[in-house]
Amino acid sequence: MRSRLFTPGPTRIPDAVRAATAQPLPYHRGPEFKKIFLETLDQLKYFFQTQHQVLVLTCSGTGGMEACVTNLLGHGDRVLAIEGGKFGERWAEISRAFGLEVISMKLEWGKSPEPEELKKLLQQSVNVRAVFCTHSETSTGARADIQALSEIVHAHSEALFIVDGITSVGVLPFYFDQWQIDACVSGSQKGAMSPPGLALVALNPRAWQRHALANLPRYYFDFTAARTAAQEGNTSWTPAITAILGLAESLCRIRHKGLEHYWQHYAHLASATRAGMQALHLEILPQHPSAALTAVKAPAGIDGREIVKTLRERFGATVAGGQGHLKGKIFRVTHMGAYDYLDMIAIMSAVELTLSALGWKIELGAGLTAMQQAYHQQLQE
Amino acid sequence: MRSRLFTPGPTRIPDAVRAATAQPLPYHRGPEFKKIFLETLDQLKYFFQTQHQVLVLTCSGTGGMEACVTNLLGHGDRVLAIEGGKFGERWAEISRAFGLEVISMKLEWGKSPEPEELKKLLQQSVNVRAVFCTHSETSTGARADIQALSEIVHAHSEALFIVDGITSVGVLPFYFDQWQIDACVSGSQKGAMSPPGLALVALNPRAWQRHALANLPRYYFDFTAARTAAQEGNTSWTPAITAILGLAESLCRIRHKGLEHYWQHYAHLASATRAGMQALHLEILPQHPSAALTAVKAPAGIDGREIVKTLRERFGATVAGGQGHLKGKIFRVTHMGAYDYLDMIAIMSAVELTLSALGWKIELGAGLTAMQQAYHQQLQE
Repeated sequence: MRSRLFTPGPTRIPDAVRAATAQPLPYHRGPEFKKIFLETLDQLKYFFQTQHQVLVLTCSGTGGMEACVTNLLGHGDRVLAIEGGKFGERWAEISRAFGLEVISMKLEWGKSPEPEELKKLLQQSVNVRAVFCTHSETSTGARADIQALSEIVHAHSEALFIVDGITSVGVLPFYFDQWQIDACVSGSQKGAMSPPGLALVALNPRAWQRHALANLPRYYFDFTAARTAAQEGNTSWTPAITAILGLAESLCRIRHKGLEHYWQHYAHLASATRAGMQALHLEILPQHPSAALTAVKAPAGIDGREIVKTLRERFGATVAGGQGHLKGKIFRVTHMGAYDYLDMIAIMSAVELTLSALGWKIELGAGLTAMQQAYHQQLQE
Repeated sequence: MRSRLFTPGPTRIPDAVRAATAQPLPYHRGPEFKKIFLETLDQLKYFFQTQHQVLVLTCSGTGGMEACVTNLLGHGDRVLAIEGGKFGERWAEISRAFGLEVISMKLEWGKSPEPEELKKLLQQSVNVRAVFCTHSETSTGARADIQALSEIVHAHSEALFIVDGITSVGVLPFYFDQWQIDACVSGSQKGAMSPPGLALVALNPRAWQRHALANLPRYYFDFTAARTAAQEGNTSWTPAITAILGLAESLCRIRHKGLEHYWQHYAHLASATRAGMQALHLEILPQHPSAALTAVKAPAGIDGREIVKTLRERFGATVAGGQGHLKGKIFRVTHMGAYDYLDMIAIMSAVELTLSALGWKIELGAGLTAMQQAYHQQLQE
């Protein structure tokens, strides 16, 4: 039985990327690393669809989120957090930890934010300095309409629009410059298909203007230090060198095929998977699903944790369970990462057999058939 | 020409460790990772010579230093930083960034702190909440007498004694519990011989008591979150998984041979290297050298940067230059990491030929001979 990873981060990474991370370490202040890092910074502009400098920080995505808060805001600032899941809530938690005043726009988990509701909230509130939003909410599988939300933010406030793109950049269509996003955080282990350990932060000139005024305390995550270093192909501190070697290899591959290839590929895997799950009479949690992952409700009477456990024990397949109050209620299967259709048909078979073993009455093969039909249809288009 | 890394971090890591980092990624919330991580946390107790929980944070050593400041101190606290090089100064910089009042004990770079001077300073100052010290100051190659300094701190103040052990733990004799150190930061890429990306933080019960009162803002680096997660073989946020796989492999190897083996091994490499350098009439910068690295003054009239450049271009050998006001004045050769005597004799030969090419009059072979004699002598002991 071979271990198979189907979690929405870390995701399966290409073998060539794994091999790249195992190279002998270059010195991070030497010319060999500098060349690799400058090329990677260039690839990151493509990855985010921006003309602006992208920063690479050694930390998880959460560290990148904290960096946005402490580098772009000042003591006691008012911010608005769109909270539709665990990662939306994290923006509010970080903001409160640094003494900011948080207006919460709470959504039922699985729902996507309505631009009109955000507009109302912004019209009722004065002096909101930042709006935080999650593009692809990994805890629920929901996708937000970032472009529409960005327009609302800029039309009705002076706030920076700061986006968690951790499971969206490289996965869903994403245009940092065109959509006028002010700051966006992503990670190395999601759409970028490399090992975890790096946060990637895109910033536009408006964000840099605010940074110049931002007076929250920071040192390790300081953007000025990171940008100054990056301009010379350097990092403020010793970086996760092997993760950067992996990222460099992965971004080359992504650029070679083009982002549009991946956006369509993940959309295909996601819609075929949803078709399969629905044919098993399983309910998809999110109203507007992200192509990064599919979050499926556990059938009535079956604990989602049992589904996760059985998939692992019988098939060596690791999917993610639910987080927060969704613990035991859902399971989540990734599409982003180094996956193809045959990987997805394999996990669908494992899901069918698992549900059947746990007592859920299904017609064995119904999910596989529906998924295959959906995929066949995609090939015709 | 093969590339060879002789920098004091990242250091050369064992091939088996590199291979370990290239394994397929386990899910960081699954049982496979949990098992590896709990074993690693146990090995870290041995590595630091402590009975207490060691925390693993995804960041560089500097991130671990910031974590100690924000988790162990409160608004406006007074601290004392022993500053004998770039890394000593960093404690003061981080403390100031978070609004602390810093008493600086400045040393000439290359000098080690005198316990009696620290005693005087502590006697003159009231209410010092922490004393920061660098065990092995990587920018100068100097070693501090941590045991003696710890006694002074505890005898003459209520301060926590917080140690930067980034290039000392696993390299120099180090006893966290026995020496009554309250907090110590190390990194994955130095004595732990694995890729960079992780800070390792040991804390004693006194530190945890202070943590309970510490009110500086923090989120990503919060020790309570890290400890709560660690007790279940978990991490607060997605960790640098591949770096942990490497660290796990490396710490197993270190425990197998025993820390004493490495302490003596590095001491031998360092003293043989110093003997060789001195036979070339080169001056060792530090008064009390650390076995982690040897910092050598560039001869009069030769720019240290030229030495570094020539070593790289002619021999593919990367050593580190000077930092801060020592830029161009010194070069630094590591001993910590996966190195043996033959690696050191090779870099000695490259140094001799490089200095000769740059016009320094030396008797070719004098360094090699002295180094070999020193090594031969060690074998007899």
